[in-house]
Amino acid sequence: MTLYGGIEAGGTKFVCGIGDESGRLLESITFPTTTPGQTLARALAFFAGKPLAALGIGTFGPVDLRPDSPAYGRITSTPKPGWANTDMLRPFRERLGVPVGLDTDVNAAALGEHRWGAAQGLDTFVYLTVGTGIGGGGMAGGRLMHGALHPEMGHVRVPHDWARDPFAGVCPYHGDCLEGLASGPAIEARWGVPGESLPADHPAWELEAHYLALGVANLVLTLSPQRVILGGGVMGVAGMLPRVRALVLALLNGYLQIAAIVEDIEGYIVPPGLGTQAGVRGALALAIGAAFG
Amino acid sequence: MTLYGGIEAGGTKFVCGIGDESGRLLESITFPTTTPGQTLARALAFFAGKPLAALGIGTFGPVDLRPDSPAYGRITSTPKPGWANTDMLRPFRERLGVPVGLDTDVNAAALGEHRWGAAQGLDTFVYLTVGTGIGGGGMAGGRLMHGALHPEMGHVRVPHDWARDPFAGVCPYHGDCLEGLASGPAIEARWGVPGESLPADHPAWELEAHYLALGVANLVLTLSPQRVILGGGVMGVAGMLPRVRALVLALLNGYLQIAAIVEDIEGYIVPPGLGTQAGVRGALALAIGAAFG
Repeated sequence: MTLYGGIEAGGTKFVCGIGDESGRLLESITFPTTTPGQTLARALAFFAGKPLAALGIGTFGPVDLRPDSPAYGRITSTPKPGWANTDMLRPFRERLGVPVGLDTDVNAAALGEHRWGAAQGLDTFVYLTVGTGIGGGGMAGGRLMHGALHPEMGHVRVPHDWARDPFAGVCPYHGDCLEGLASGPAIEARWGVPGESLPADHPAWELEAHYLALGVANLVLTLSPQRVILGGGVMGVAGMLPRVRALVLALLNGYLQIAAIVEDIEGYIVPPGLGTQAGVRGALALAIGAAFG
Repeated sequence: MTLYGGIEAGGTKFVCGIGDESGRLLESITFPTTTPGQTLARALAFFAGKPLAALGIGTFGPVDLRPDSPAYGRITSTPKPGWANTDMLRPFRERLGVPVGLDTDVNAAALGEHRWGAAQGLDTFVYLTVGTGIGGGGMAGGRLMHGALHPEMGHVRVPHDWARDPFAGVCPYHGDCLEGLASGPAIEARWGVPGESLPADHPAWELEAHYLALGVANLVLTLSPQRVILGGGVMGVAGMLPRVRALVLALLNGYLQIAAIVEDIEGYIVPPGLGTQAGVRGALALAIGAAFG
């Protein structure tokens, strides 16, 4: 059996796994993201000595994904202390001696969802995660989206409902961009307690759904996805997905007469088919691509 | 010489042209968009008897672009009176008896810009037009963007600066979406006179640039385009393009460390290389594609 390695390199935690070509996860570990040196060393230690055919890495970003760039594989302008300019690629390529496929964490998850999850058979879809940060990726015309760098989707501006929500936002770059208003840290900063401790009927969640629906409706109008996959810890809050679906329909207000949206919103805005494994299994899919690339 | 026909079917005017495979326009006419029957008849009359190899149509929308749909080629939910459900494809295919390539007006313009204009050699870019309406298209990974329907980009929500701009917006679906705040009709409704009659130093233009920059910055974060092409009548206002460039940089605030953006904004946000011919020459490119498809 040929084995592949996958790393979901998130801003909060790393998930490292080993799987086969069917995307089945045979072994995995999870540990917190601390300093670059310590965190990458733990990942390297996990894979050391394992007979991998290739490795895939889905990393938080922004990250330089242009193979012809001198900074290829490096984190660029993250607000995460210590991680700017970290090389996410060469340590693994050099120490493990196998081909390494690299993309953003959300593009990796999108690839995993396309191969084995909720986006099978689609050619244009979005994967958006809402947790410590907000980030999105996906496919357009059957290819993972890249362009000048890679899609980002979290730092977009949406209308800030100042009357209902005088909170200024937490983004160090933009204040009240979508991530600044609706990420996990924004919820905690606005209400003074972690989101986990807020009850299901707290007004925090209707406001959260409102901002997320603004972000999703804009993505639908901009990319015309065949489906939108919403993952991340905040989407695990009871009732969040149905609220977002209803508010997206209200925001579009009948403008897009697309049956997939107006007649089947439950099938249009969906959770990840791979659940919390979308990231690491997507990284396995990147590894398989690297082995055959 | 092989001849191709192209139609830029806009909500305000139609441009019909005949050109060769180099995209050179040999002959063209322009007439206002009135009723569907009258307007399509004028276009058919222009092409009647001409020895075309194929026809391309770039139409305003939303339009059904799924070849397997019973409504393929029909305008869907336009607010434009009389045009909902108009079949933009069959009258031409049946009367002219040639292959017909169909896409949105903005995707056609994007294709023209890719072949002969400001997007040559790029694989991911956006073409946004700001005039009677606001609409966008483009390529991702070297292919025109489609998905569930087609990108739309004009009806996205951006922060409405109520303090500076108490105007409610003109969009019949959404009120103050980007098109509702920043299209030509929005400018006229807000200030009580057509934009053409407002002086270059009128505060209307700084507000307009502000909203357009919000829209463009969101597109940059969402699609990671290698370039953004801004066309349409409103972009012809003196000083508008430099204002939008400066405000986009201010909104991104250093978050995206992409040299193409931060070091060369003049080369990143650009006017159409084909000028006002982008639409009709893009339709010629659609025709060439249809002939060889």
